[in-house]
Amino acid sequence: MKIGIFDSGIGGLTVVREIRRLMPGQPLVYFGDTARTPYGTKSRATITRYALEDTRFLLEQGAGIIVIACHSASSIASAAVANEFSVPVFEVVSPSVEQAARVTRNRRIGIIGTRATIESRVYDHKIPELLPGAVVLGMPCPLLVPLVEEGWLKRRETRMIVRKYIRPLKERQVDTLVMGCTHYPLIKDIIEAKAGKRIVTVDPSLQTALAVKRFLEASGDSAEPDSPGDERYFVSDLAPATEEIARRFLGGKIKLEKA
Amino acid sequence: MKIGIFDSGIGGLTVVREIRRLMPGQPLVYFGDTARTPYGTKSRATITRYALEDTRFLLEQGAGIIVIACHSASSIASAAVANEFSVPVFEVVSPSVEQAARVTRNRRIGIIGTRATIESRVYDHKIPELLPGAVVLGMPCPLLVPLVEEGWLKRRETRMIVRKYIRPLKERQVDTLVMGCTHYPLIKDIIEAKAGKRIVTVDPSLQTALAVKRFLEASGDSAEPDSPGDERYFVSDLAPATEEIARRFLGGKIKLEKA
Repeated sequence: MKIGIFDSGIGGLTVVREIRRLMPGQPLVYFGDTARTPYGTKSRATITRYALEDTRFLLEQGAGIIVIACHSASSIASAAVANEFSVPVFEVVSPSVEQAARVTRNRRIGIIGTRATIESRVYDHKIPELLPGAVVLGMPCPLLVPLVEEGWLKRRETRMIVRKYIRPLKERQVDTLVMGCTHYPLIKDIIEAKAGKRIVTVDPSLQTALAVKRFLEASGDSAEPDSPGDERYFVSDLAPATEEIARRFLGGKIKLEKA
Repeated sequence: MKIGIFDSGIGGLTVVREIRRLMPGQPLVYFGDTARTPYGTKSRATITRYALEDTRFLLEQGAGIIVIACHSASSIASAAVANEFSVPVFEVVSPSVEQAARVTRNRRIGIIGTRATIESRVYDHKIPELLPGAVVLGMPCPLLVPLVEEGWLKRRETRMIVRKYIRPLKERQVDTLVMGCTHYPLIKDIIEAKAGKRIVTVDPSLQTALAVKRFLEASGDSAEPDSPGDERYFVSDLAPATEEIARRFLGGKIKLEKA
């Protein structure tokens, strides 16, 4: 079963990285909508239209299961994608919600993400469904994506800005922090340092890959993929810096193709 | 003569602001391509295609003169726009190049802008044409757009990041600094403070509005506009925060329409 993964850009490669680590050899096709990135600042209608187009492209490339690696699209458009197409659809929010509900002890959970993800209030709705009485505190962190894409992964300014974003969540005593954006695994060490030892972080890229792995194992599709190592990476726009940034997210060499 | 102005997003409203200040009552139509913003990270082919589409939309709205308010599109696509359509085309680079060449005394000119603008090397090519022997030093500042859009206009982090970007230009003794992005007028005070008194800044939004004003006066079109105060502001996507951000750029109330 070929896994199709899409994101508004190259951030979703952090999900691919975990998929490859957990399911080596599994065929996959990636689509990054770099011509229209980012989705996070766009309206619900536009994000939904883009998500449906992205899914259609992956199905045309032979994907039999769809992973929405974009938090904005997962928050806003996953139901529309699941309704429109008759394939299994995974997204990055539900596995993170489940993990957060599992690990919190005081039922106070912080979420960091883009403005669109936080304002969608998807976590505020979903976590209390699993964990009645849970208090969910969202913090939009719109500067973190550009800081990561710039490669400012170790800089003082990045640490200061992360601290500024996380401080109000600490003051309100969350014990669990969902890193609600595909870019954040690249600054996981800074986020964990600023969150401190008392806060457990949840990495949606890892949780989503685990959910896909469980599904493939349950459906008997994980053993012996038809064409192991069949991986293609498409983008809607290929700018000079894209491949270098993509390498950083995937954690290794990558060949991007223009869709 | 109705002026049509386009930008990748709402940053171009700093050009509109100067146009309204210098030519009150002049009819104008604005298009901000918020569904595909930003252009700065995209390829030359994609930026050119978008610029042609944006221009076509403004002509359909009755524009008789086009102003490309986006630095990335000005750098990369202004020739394509001028070739494709038979109306006067203004852009933000040439007036800034002329002003920089006029005001420098030591012929060392710094440019700050998005990665796409700086990497286009348009200033490196154009300034020495006007001013032989000029040394042009470009510095990509990709974090400034998100900082401005977040409204972090007075924050310590913004000042630190501006200082970090400008320091290498000061060390190389530029005496003139082109603020090569429509967003930068909103942090002009920080940029000027970090540049110091010895450096003269050039504001492309102002220089472009002055060039348009000179053209309209020369062609006799500026006196008594046909329908004074006829202003419309279109965007390709209207997200909840867009109107508030637009107000900040225009410096006053604005009604956005979905194109």
